[in-house]
Amino acid sequence: MDTPHTSIRPATPATSLLARYEAVRSASLALAAPLSAEDCQAQSMPDASPVKWHLAHTTWFFETFLLQPRLPGYTVFHPRYGFLFNSYYNAIGERHPRPQRGLLTRPPLQDVLAYRAHVDEAMARLIPRLDGDRDMEALVELGLHHEQQHQELILTDIKHLLSCNALRPAYVGTPRPCAVVSTARQEWVDHPGGIVQVGHDGDGFCFDNETPLHQVLLRPFRLARRPVTQGEYLAFMDDGGYRRPELWLSLGWDIVRTQGWEAPLYWEYLDETWQAFTLHGMEAIDPDAPVTHISYFEADAYARWAGARLPKEAEWEQIARGHPLEPQANFVETGELHPRAAPAGNDEKAPLQLYGDIWEWTASPYEPYPGFAPPPGAVGEYNGKFMCNQYVLRGGSCATPRSHIRATYRNFFPPDARWQFSGIRLACDA
Amino acid sequence: MDTPHTSIRPATPATSLLARYEAVRSASLALAAPLSAEDCQAQSMPDASPVKWHLAHTTWFFETFLLQPRLPGYTVFHPRYGFLFNSYYNAIGERHPRPQRGLLTRPPLQDVLAYRAHVDEAMARLIPRLDGDRDMEALVELGLHHEQQHQELILTDIKHLLSCNALRPAYVGTPRPCAVVSTARQEWVDHPGGIVQVGHDGDGFCFDNETPLHQVLLRPFRLARRPVTQGEYLAFMDDGGYRRPELWLSLGWDIVRTQGWEAPLYWEYLDETWQAFTLHGMEAIDPDAPVTHISYFEADAYARWAGARLPKEAEWEQIARGHPLEPQANFVETGELHPRAAPAGNDEKAPLQLYGDIWEWTASPYEPYPGFAPPPGAVGEYNGKFMCNQYVLRGGSCATPRSHIRATYRNFFPPDARWQFSGIRLACDA
Amino acid sequence: MDTPHTSIRPATPATSLLARYEAVRSASLALAAPLSAEDCQAQSMPDASPVKWHLAHTTWFFETFLLQPRLPGYTVFHPRYGFLFNSYYNAIGERHPRPQRGLLTRPPLQDVLAYRAHVDEAMARLIPRLDGDRDMEALVELGLHHEQQHQELILTDIKHLLSCNALRPAYVGTPRPCAVVSTARQEWVDHPGGIVQVGHDGDGFCFDNETPLHQVLLRPFRLARRPVTQGEYLAFMDDGGYRRPELWLSLGWDIVRTQGWEAPLYWEYLDETWQAFTLHGMEAIDPDAPVTHISYFEADAYARWAGARLPKEAEWEQIARGHPLEPQANFVETGELHPRAAPAGNDEKAPLQLYGDIWEWTASPYEPYPGFAPPPGAVGEYNGKFMCNQYVLRGGSCATPRSHIRATYRNFFPPDARWQFSGIRLACDA
Amino acid sequence: MDTPHTSIRPATPATSLLARYEAVRSASLALAAPLSAEDCQAQSMPDASPVKWHLAHTTWFFETFLLQPRLPGYTVFHPRYGFLFNSYYNAIGERHPRPQRGLLTRPPLQDVLAYRAHVDEAMARLIPRLDGDRDMEALVELGLHHEQQHQELILTDIKHLLSCNALRPAYVGTPRPCAVVSTARQEWVDHPGGIVQVGHDGDGFCFDNETPLHQVLLRPFRLARRPVTQGEYLAFMDDGGYRRPELWLSLGWDIVRTQGWEAPLYWEYLDETWQAFTLHGMEAIDPDAPVTHISYFEADAYARWAGARLPKEAEWEQIARGHPLEPQANFVETGELHPRAAPAGNDEKAPLQLYGDIWEWTASPYEPYPGFAPPPGAVGEYNGKFMCNQYVLRGGSCATPRSHIRATYRNFFPPDARWQFSGIRLACDA
Repeated sequence: MDTPHTSIRPATPATSLLARYEAVRSASLALAAPLSAEDCQAQSMPDASPVKWHLAHTTWFFETFLLQPRLPGYTVFHPRYGFLFNSYYNAIGERHPRPQRGLLTRPPLQDVLAYRAHVDEAMARLIPRLDGDRDMEALVELGLHHEQQHQELILTDIKHLLSCNALRPAYVGTPRPCAVVSTARQEWVDHPGGIVQVGHDGDGFCFDNETPLHQVLLRPFRLARRPVTQGEYLAFMDDGGYRRPELWLSLGWDIVRTQGWEAPLYWEYLDETWQAFTLHGMEAIDPDAPVTHISYFEADAYARWAGARLPKEAEWEQIARGHPLEPQANFVETGELHPRAAPAGNDEKAPLQLYGDIWEWTASPYEPYPGFAPPPGAVGEYNGKFMCNQYVLRGGSCATPRSHIRATYRNFFPPDARWQFSGIRLACDA
Repeated sequence: MDTPHTSIRPATPATSLLARYEAVRSASLALAAPLSAEDCQAQSMPDASPVKWHLAHTTWFFETFLLQPRLPGYTVFHPRYGFLFNSYYNAIGERHPRPQRGLLTRPPLQDVLAYRAHVDEAMARLIPRLDGDRDMEALVELGLHHEQQHQELILTDIKHLLSCNALRPAYVGTPRPCAVVSTARQEWVDHPGGIVQVGHDGDGFCFDNETPLHQVLLRPFRLARRPVTQGEYLAFMDDGGYRRPELWLSLGWDIVRTQGWEAPLYWEYLDETWQAFTLHGMEAIDPDAPVTHISYFEADAYARWAGARLPKEAEWEQIARGHPLEPQANFVETGELHPRAAPAGNDEKAPLQLYGDIWEWTASPYEPYPGFAPPPGAVGEYNGKFMCNQYVLRGGSCATPRSHIRATYRNFFPPDARWQFSGIRLACDA
Repeated sequence: MDTPHTSIRPATPATSLLARYEAVRSASLALAAPLSAEDCQAQSMPDASPVKWHLAHTTWFFETFLLQPRLPGYTVFHPRYGFLFNSYYNAIGERHPRPQRGLLTRPPLQDVLAYRAHVDEAMARLIPRLDGDRDMEALVELGLHHEQQHQELILTDIKHLLSCNALRPAYVGTPRPCAVVSTARQEWVDHPGGIVQVGHDGDGFCFDNETPLHQVLLRPFRLARRPVTQGEYLAFMDDGGYRRPELWLSLGWDIVRTQGWEAPLYWEYLDETWQAFTLHGMEAIDPDAPVTHISYFEADAYARWAGARLPKEAEWEQIARGHPLEPQANFVETGELHPRAAPAGNDEKAPLQLYGDIWEWTASPYEPYPGFAPPPGAVGEYNGKFMCNQYVLRGGSCATPRSHIRATYRNFFPPDARWQFSGIRLACDA
Repeated sequence: MDTPHTSIRPATPATSLLARYEAVRSASLALAAPLSAEDCQAQSMPDASPVKWHLAHTTWFFETFLLQPRLPGYTVFHPRYGFLFNSYYNAIGERHPRPQRGLLTRPPLQDVLAYRAHVDEAMARLIPRLDGDRDMEALVELGLHHEQQHQELILTDIKHLLSCNALRPAYVGTPRPCAVVSTARQEWVDHPGGIVQVGHDGDGFCFDNETPLHQVLLRPFRLARRPVTQGEYLAFMDDGGYRRPELWLSLGWDIVRTQGWEAPLYWEYLDETWQAFTLHGMEAIDPDAPVTHISYFEADAYARWAGARLPKEAEWEQIARGHPLEPQANFVETGELHPRAAPAGNDEKAPLQLYGDIWEWTASPYEPYPGFAPPPGAVGEYNGKFMCNQYVLRGGSCATPRSHIRATYRNFFPPDARWQFSGIRLACDA
């Protein structure tokens, strides 16, 4: 997922839109602050992008879709940036090959920062003028959520890059694990099934793939109150989880054998103990923290081993609708870079832990909702064309900006992807 | 799809079961009859298998799952055949690498035929003894449907093999096209939506992936009365269908460019006209015949171009329930090898043309039905473990034995597969 | 090496030429006799070819280069065989892709045999007419040596194919090892160096790559009197030969690690002993037989380990000139198919064992001799264009027709090739 | 070629050795001076390395082979740098994977510069102490020539990297072509052949692969007085050079077709004219400058087209012995970064133009000289293990430090390598 989506309905007055624009744009810079220009340069695999590229591409979005068509007299910062920083919009034109983004040593980071300043200055002029133009405001909002998606990718991609270095360098030094500790005992929340509403109801921003709101018929089911922990996952491993083909989908088993998977990504068995590479460097496994950096294949195999299954996305969403997100800025937005929240998971009030720890694989292939129609033009390429051979994830991770999380949000990745903060929540038939 | 599935309920008395056993087994031999031992030896790609291997593997199924456990005193034909002819059953043990099946020049075809005779003789003794053992009878039935699946693969795989030869040799010489001609004008059949039943109701054989019967909520929709024709598909090609990225899923567009797709598989532009390789050799395109040998990506792009969409499998099934299959043996069963049926498509009575022309790509990823549980043991590997990154096809093709077709049948292939007789039926919202 | 070369000087009167034609052509059929049509169909890797293809390609050579241009009224057997059975002659035109030769189930073997008979009948008419035309007679001679090269390939390719089958079937059942036993103690033969003659002197047939005769300045050297044995090679293995990078060329070490080499091709460690797959099935290693089926990389590493080096081809040739081949037909020519000769290696008279056991890797990259000029036209593609990234082998193996062996013969393969009967003879500076 | 070699004989008094050490080390920094930390970070292909890596690896050489074993009390700069910056010395231990050198964002460039300063300070203490230890002085000399090799690689690798950027950025802005203009008419210099000396005579530094001095027997030959020009190469292209298989080695023709080669690397046909990417950005082709950035395959095909051949390395060396290099520092050593020399090629006195324009492909596979023995230990891995599937180049390019060039120097690359400054000098038999 490089990113995009189209908002369907804007909702924010222009002043607060500008304030939000500035806040989101600043947060990207804060995420890059601990990194050198060299760190921002490299690309560790085709699925990841350099931080510098993320900073430029998100800026290109505003320049291409807002400033060029809408701000009279706007001067393009550089005529070739459109070629360099277009991600996948065929309607916009040719572009630099994705696997070679790490070769773009020019423009240097400082030029990209100047590009950001140039665009931000122009956007500060454009946004107040948009008053009343709901389509344009929606497009700004889309650009901001687009940028928030890339903020998470900045963190996942830099983590992958640093993990390739034998020095195992930390992104930020403070030795705090990224994920919230969860000591709550595993319990279920029940749902009676029936005809339910799925999708976004139009109040506030959403991506096009969350629409239209529609009805789904569910059978009674149960959803786990918290994610699977690292300790529980270790029990799966100790029980031969990675050596028993009967637990795996056929494609997953092929990968287990050819790639030699025997633990989640970033786990290493050192000094007779399991450790994991984190944004803070190598750390011991915390048995009470959610397991993360696993593929759909591993999530599915674990669920089978546990005698349960993964939830369908509609099931997850029903439970989430009853337990709305409590908005509070997290480190991605504050720039404080201490990803670990206070151990909020222990008290009685937040036992469901649905949001902001890990992206939770669902058993739902990524499909269009009934009646889905992408918007016309290039932004229509945001989501729809990726609806094949991917699975939906729900919930939002510790690296997701808190204001970017919502109950109807549909994230999606191929079933073998592991470099995201992806984990497991179990479900079963009631 | 190599094959498997578990029947859930047997229904056939032993005498007719034996008769049916003999009929199905004979049909496989009839399909191989026009082929030399050399033709039966070769494997043209990893997804395909040699005819000899199909003949042996289907036999191995009966030996492994029925004769060895159930026929006292049964002597295994050859101790290493289990290694050579197991397809993908991890529970049974190690096996010969799939991409190298074409290297098995030993055993020779005549030994495989002797293997078949050996097993058939033993099955003729076993089946009458099974009376009353519903599980075992169900397993025989499963083996027969398994063999019918491989009968279709014999035809698709030999077609692919022969197409790789510059001589473009025919499987059988009679110059008759494989697909039924369809001159009916395109019209829609309407469905009001609502809560509908999906899945097999337990009357007669089915694979495990057709169960359990369950309810689905549908919106009103329309389904085309006949498949898309080659003439219609040519219009799509002439309109730049293979050159317009906005029509394609992202993964599909990647393949179009890297593989250079510009027409269905087997089409060649010769002497200023489009021709296609068929089981009868090269033949001119018939504009009124259903287009076939296209991938999901092409079906999806065509539907988008046509302003429609592909049906969901539940939609297809609802219409099919109202228009049951008229059973009549086809060439796969009779061994007459004249695949072309009489032009039945023109009269008033069969205008829907749902069965027996092409496998129709649906917009449904291949998923378990709610509550699906594969049977324990090796036969549980038949279907469930392949439920990832594939799409469901419905209907049955001209190469499918007529007695193997039913309204609830779920075929499945990856979205880039083209060597099956796969085509398009359009749908749209009502 | 698919084949070619151009003879430079014919020498054979027409009657004996025809007799020799018939003898060589018959020998090919005798080699195929123990094989089924299926065995002759399959291709186990891109470097190997099906036996059927070898039988057809050698026939195509005579049809293309002799019958079509020179026999008035000759009718081509089949107009597309030129496309199917051309190996690599760009000057002749397009051709079937090499890695897909195993897909040519048509024409069947019986048609290829009819093709051979058709061409042989025509050649029997043409050869007597050639009397006096030295160029044409030379071309017949070239075609026969070409066919003898393919006779060896028939054996090496069928061996590789059968080795891929878990049944490990024998080519011929008699359990006799292919290679001559050599119990002679390792000793050296000395050469004083100086300016020596290298290349063919024009008496009898040779390929173009053996010309021109030229002078080379050699330093004093010693050449081993017999090849390295399997027992000696086992000592290298036991001493960590495959685990010590300092013994290996860099490219070789890469392959050792990525391919997991730890013994010669075809060796398997079974029941706590080393066995090898042979044309007669699995057999225990014979410590006194020459080691074979090793790459240049392994030969070079062994020599380094042994404190010696591989000979240069000019060194090998000097010794061979002093010890001419005693001509005597071997199994390839007699069709008796008992590759193992009597243990001639033990007596005093044949201690050098230079010919007919294994192809011996030399340290000489395959280069043109000074002044080399390939003949004009398609036959000029026989040798010259392959002079890159290959090494010269000398001597001839147990699978080489005896009449095809001579002291100046230059065989060549890439340094990682192992499926030929290739082994080691040591050399060192004097 | 990553680098190494062992000098056999040191020759420089310690004071001048230190001065030379400082000069060579400074020149590396001067080459990196126009580059940002980001430029120094990226790796454009597995064969190339990041500039930062070159700067660190050359430093690691001195630390590993001199300071650690010989300077009492020396403190290693960082314990993991040995893992990160070892190139290919198996005897030293494990190392970072070569294709991932571009992922080493840590250590940052500034740390690598500190590493250089740390080692340089220690070397300034060690070198004066070495007085009398010829082995150690030879090792310092080896380290300096090793560094000079990497200076050339810095230029070729950064050129390749920058060429991957659609901005086509210049390494240094001054628009001067890199190669010397050569307007001299093509003429031959004759050599009578005979027994000649080849290899280094022991006066001054050389790599181990230039030894031992030995005798070779040559036939009379002629060598072109100047390299092939871009204008001449264009004539080859215009004559269908890239479309005529009869001109090419078989491996070369495969690459021409699969890679789509139709001109030298870096050439682009823009605005109806051929331009080339240079270290100064895009520039029009200069018909009088030597053609460069071509593979052995192209050089060989050109020579065949021109009715000539490539010289053997011994031939080249004989002519070079009679025309010694006039030492004069070039831009690599002065850091002035104006690679283009004064047009010295036009006058009468330097018509041979043997040194310092391009590396000239010879027809000689890279082999050990007779009697070659690499030194013991890790430095023995410098050259010998690469003597396979590479060809020798002679002469030195515009990017080679002038003090690094000599008549006996043997450079080597695989026949498909094009990113070096490699070109053509013709030869023919006399």
